[in-house]
Amino acid sequence: MSKNPATAFEQLQTILGKVSDLSSASALLSWDQQTGMPPRGAAARGQVLATLSETIHGMITAPEVAKLLAEAGAKPRLSRDEKAWLREATWANERACKLPASLVRELSLAEAQAFEDWQRAKAAQKFALFSPSLKKLVALARQKAECFGYAETPWDALAQDFERGTSAARVTKLFSPLRDATVDLLAKIRNAKPVDSSCLTGKWPLDAQREFGMRVARDIGYDFNAGRLDVSSHPFSTTITAGDHRITTRYAESNLLDALGSIIHECGHALYEQGFNIKDARGPLYEAPSLGVHESQSRFWEVRIGQSLPFWRHYHPIIRQYFPGRFDDVTAEQLYAAVNQVEPDFIRVEADEITYNLHIIIRFELEVAILSGELSVDDIPAAWNEKYARYLGITVPNDAKGCLQDVHWAYGAFGYFPSYTLGNIYSAMLVEKLEADVKGLWKGIERGDFGAALSWLRENIHTHGRRMPAEELVKQATGRAPTVEPLIKYLRKKYGSIYGVR
Amino acid sequence: MSKNPATAFEQLQTILGKVSDLSSASALLSWDQQTGMPPRGAAARGQVLATLSETIHGMITAPEVAKLLAEAGAKPRLSRDEKAWLREATWANERACKLPASLVRELSLAEAQAFEDWQRAKAAQKFALFSPSLKKLVALARQKAECFGYAETPWDALAQDFERGTSAARVTKLFSPLRDATVDLLAKIRNAKPVDSSCLTGKWPLDAQREFGMRVARDIGYDFNAGRLDVSSHPFSTTITAGDHRITTRYAESNLLDALGSIIHECGHALYEQGFNIKDARGPLYEAPSLGVHESQSRFWEVRIGQSLPFWRHYHPIIRQYFPGRFDDVTAEQLYAAVNQVEPDFIRVEADEITYNLHIIIRFELEVAILSGELSVDDIPAAWNEKYARYLGITVPNDAKGCLQDVHWAYGAFGYFPSYTLGNIYSAMLVEKLEADVKGLWKGIERGDFGAALSWLRENIHTHGRRMPAEELVKQATGRAPTVEPLIKYLRKKYGSIYGVR
Repeated sequence: MSKNPATAFEQLQTILGKVSDLSSASALLSWDQQTGMPPRGAAARGQVLATLSETIHGMITAPEVAKLLAEAGAKPRLSRDEKAWLREATWANERACKLPASLVRELSLAEAQAFEDWQRAKAAQKFALFSPSLKKLVALARQKAECFGYAETPWDALAQDFERGTSAARVTKLFSPLRDATVDLLAKIRNAKPVDSSCLTGKWPLDAQREFGMRVARDIGYDFNAGRLDVSSHPFSTTITAGDHRITTRYAESNLLDALGSIIHECGHALYEQGFNIKDARGPLYEAPSLGVHESQSRFWEVRIGQSLPFWRHYHPIIRQYFPGRFDDVTAEQLYAAVNQVEPDFIRVEADEITYNLHIIIRFELEVAILSGELSVDDIPAAWNEKYARYLGITVPNDAKGCLQDVHWAYGAFGYFPSYTLGNIYSAMLVEKLEADVKGLWKGIERGDFGAALSWLRENIHTHGRRMPAEELVKQATGRAPTVEPLIKYLRKKYGSIYGVR
Repeated sequence: MSKNPATAFEQLQTILGKVSDLSSASALLSWDQQTGMPPRGAAARGQVLATLSETIHGMITAPEVAKLLAEAGAKPRLSRDEKAWLREATWANERACKLPASLVRELSLAEAQAFEDWQRAKAAQKFALFSPSLKKLVALARQKAECFGYAETPWDALAQDFERGTSAARVTKLFSPLRDATVDLLAKIRNAKPVDSSCLTGKWPLDAQREFGMRVARDIGYDFNAGRLDVSSHPFSTTITAGDHRITTRYAESNLLDALGSIIHECGHALYEQGFNIKDARGPLYEAPSLGVHESQSRFWEVRIGQSLPFWRHYHPIIRQYFPGRFDDVTAEQLYAAVNQVEPDFIRVEADEITYNLHIIIRFELEVAILSGELSVDDIPAAWNEKYARYLGITVPNDAKGCLQDVHWAYGAFGYFPSYTLGNIYSAMLVEKLEADVKGLWKGIERGDFGAALSWLRENIHTHGRRMPAEELVKQATGRAPTVEPLIKYLRKKYGSIYGVR
């Protein structure tokens, strides 16, 4: 008995399966780099990651891949899934072919170096320790943008890796009404009576923080048999392979909400990937269509669920078991108000819902200017601080609390930041539809039943993986093209009620 | 200004550097698999490791490599280091070229599956759960042996990966006098007055075990900035890259010595690799010449240092701080005797120095028979138990304490076991020379000065990496060809004194 020779499609599956495997190795190396690598391993780790990037790039750009793609695409009667698979494989191949292997290696090495320098600079609160490697990354990013090509501005070329089809102009158009509405709402809130958040001050034992965070993660559906929780200086989630979807957080004794919010946020990402269709594993559909959609899931759980009144009504008696005596004189409603206190501050990941999008808009505006050359790297701290003064009315005390706070640029990830606010926008759209589809949703949350929301997301978002582009997926799930209106409406209603403003 | 074109040697360095990088990725994936991978990631992990093996194999067997090796070797006036480098690169290339890529992938997948099955079988104490995948591994190992070729028995072909130049016949010749001397000594010890080891019974808090273990690791020179200590069901050490040399152990409340012994043993391996010459990193000389030499380092620290009287004289007051009240009525000499109690038992890694080599000899004899086809996989438990009855006089109660106790075969590592006893043999030779070279060695150990021993090993063993074959290295360090005589002499003297026998 002889086997039929592999079809072009099957050969592509084998090749992309191996690409996926090497990407898994790379994901684990990065996870380890941030969670437990001994410091003296740093230099060599960069080489390993660079070799993996280069090897992956070599596999995906091998001449046979384009040939096989053409051959597989010419087959009559392709199924909808096969078409999607080939569309994504073709995108990956064409995009990679635009980058020379030497640039891929150089980028990877520069990113590893920049990550190390960023850590040192942040610890020392000195942007100058980071600026040489950031300059290198910016130069390489602009080179990359030239390789990809763009119509208007280099930022557009790079952003395609995060939100395909987007552009600085489109993002600006979507964000502008949000910025205006936010600034307006923020002004009203600042004139309103402040929320009492004193119940969140004091020290919070780290063990109890960890136990409570894991409890919430389990409750909302995170599977610890297919994941784990570790500590890293910048919280993140990563999928190593199918069945291995990890999250990290960080703990501070003085801040109960930072670790908890990060755990729920990263859980949102991981729940998404734990909900991918296992049949798609080791292939290009085992992905979110965009980071905006990805962030819609993390922000959904972190904010729309984790900062809602029903959530805190449910956890009010439970959290008192983890921190005995700490909330004895506080009602669920008071706790909810404290959690949602609006206060312009420096750190994005600790920001309230109102100011959060301003943090993003600042980063977005800056990175467009950096990549176009309008803003030089050396001038970033000044430009950053100026925008924080203008949009948020606060004076940044040092670079660690300013332009060094986020890891993204140190990873060369320019074009990533808008994803968070796109996530808020998509998330608001999804919640409107979820509320319409699932009667008694919030009553369920109040009882600790998160399953209905998760099931709805599994069915409408997770299981599709990358079958559809982001906008199409959002449209299919909500019946609307991306619009900022549900988010603005929600923010006005929620904070209008908490602060008694309109 | 134009750069000179890369020489053949430089091109080889680039290629082997990448091979080393991918091996680093593989090492991290294995480390993670054993220390923290969520269970549902197991299946996909096998694929990732298989793709890495296959990719590494493809790189090292690329036709250009043989061509470049010939070209580089033809250069006149090669330095001693260049010659060694090329010898090892050629060995790696030639050995890999003998294996078809498909077999490499199949082996890697079968090993991942076997590891999972072994874990299940061990937990269930049922060899039958492991035997199907072990059969597959044995069949593949025999296929591998045929690819490599051998003069006498398939075991010889496989053992070259662990101890180049060895053969079952040579090992037998070296081991026979040791077996006879051991059986003889063991008979005398069994007739002697037993040692009082009651001070080691009871429960030992895990935190204190961990703290004390790390204390000893640091004292003997292990650099935690270039390593870390984790928990795994089978203790191991692994080098991810230069500067990242990890160790693991396991803790049992009822056994103080198991975790401690494992930590010191794995530290011995890691100290070796932390002592490699950094200039050799990412190349074929950044390795031990053989596993026998590697085990000479782990066994040196575990047994020759960690089970010596001066060691326990030093740690006697210190261990009392970690376990308050537990050794108040025990002298250093009594503790030393208890640590060195000879008692035939089932578990190799917990065995005393006398019976340890019998554990190894049993495994060695079995694996030669398994690979030659003389012993079928299904008959392993019976053969195992028969040998334990014959050599050690004990009745194996179940497979978990019998033929399922070690991970090696589940990793397809046939030919590995003799390394441990070779390590004991080499180690005894090294100690004789070390004692001659370093006056006051044991007085220093008694004061907690381990630096003299480590420096001697760094200079005479570690820094050479794989520059010389194992036997040549041992000869250069000790002035003698491998001989079992120092080990036998040492065992007779030490245990003669502890048990009052001759």
